[in-house]
Amino acid sequence: MPRRSASEVAGSRAQTLAAAVQLASVVGLEGLTIGRLADRLGMSKSGLVGRFGSKQQLQLATLDQAADIFRHTVYEPASSAPPGLARLNAICDAWVAYLGSPPFPGGCFLTTAMVEFDARPGPVNDAVKKVMRRWLGLLEREASTAIANGELPGHADPKDVAFAVNALAVGANCDFQLNRNPVSLQRARRAMAAALGS
Amino acid sequence: MPRRSASEVAGSRAQTLAAAVQLASVVGLEGLTIGRLADRLGMSKSGLVGRFGSKQQLQLATLDQAADIFRHTVYEPASSAPPGLARLNAICDAWVAYLGSPPFPGGCFLTTAMVEFDARPGPVNDAVKKVMRRWLGLLEREASTAIANGELPGHADPKDVAFAVNALAVGANCDFQLNRNPVSLQRARRAMAAALGS
Repeated sequence: MPRRSASEVAGSRAQTLAAAVQLASVVGLEGLTIGRLADRLGMSKSGLVGRFGSKQQLQLATLDQAADIFRHTVYEPASSAPPGLARLNAICDAWVAYLGSPPFPGGCFLTTAMVEFDARPGPVNDAVKKVMRRWLGLLEREASTAIANGELPGHADPKDVAFAVNALAVGANCDFQLNRNPVSLQRARRAMAAALGS
Repeated sequence: MPRRSASEVAGSRAQTLAAAVQLASVVGLEGLTIGRLADRLGMSKSGLVGRFGSKQQLQLATLDQAADIFRHTVYEPASSAPPGLARLNAICDAWVAYLGSPPFPGGCFLTTAMVEFDARPGPVNDAVKKVMRRWLGLLEREASTAIANGELPGHADPKDVAFAVNALAVGANCDFQLNRNPVSLQRARRAMAAALGS
């Protein structure tokens, strides 16, 4: 059998991860077993083990992929807005749209991963913490810029702003996934606007 | 063997539910199987089936029990405060204290149940929705009173207020369970105060 080219291997890894993200958003990262994913892809368990090494490495790669999709969907469209309040508002617009039409069938992947792994110490828990810390850090930097620009009050704490906007999004995701009421998303956006001083 | 008295049966049901709530807060309501709970209690599966009928009835009774514990911990201490803003603030104080020292080892039971059952239609999903609707309704009534009292602006939407305070608590629970940083709880309380107009 001819060896596959590097681009074929990379392409199939990307397809595997895309399927892993879809599956894990419904069954959880803990439910994402090599066997389940192999069934879904119609490939052998040993083929998947060869590609990822272990369930934990599969979980970590899947989480990374989900974080990339989140950044691509929520941060990238907003990154062309000027730094500070305009960018924070653009992020909130994209975020609420993402919550309403998530690219994952089970809703926000990262909220589910936070709840699933909060009491399971180990590399996946560490990775979830790192993803969340990076995202909160990014929001905080934009809030600092908004304060420096005079777009938010000088006494505002950029970490408080980042925390509030993120908590509202997480809470809105839980509510929307449960009730599927689009009015919740409008309420979330208004609450974010209030947290951003308007 | 003598038949047990009604109070013995009720007492053992309460003990069983207390153990079920503790277990489900860690393994989830879906992980709460008759077998697992029977092991934990050192009793037979058939004895538990006799008491609850089915896994689903056990899940529903456990959710009810968790909602009672939540109301007892968060609402009851606040119910002696005057209706309106004072009571909303007392609820937020008790809520943030509950998030920091939850009576469940796995953190807020209701947040976990929301995330776990959002994509699983059926009686447990319906029950989670009902618990959340009741709680948001209670917050909304207090917000309406606060508006009528002139403690919140006349243009405020009581449903928006209830949504924002609840979403902040859910988001704060996820963050605190993951990072165990008590500063998050202070940030949550400040964001709730801002959502309540101060």
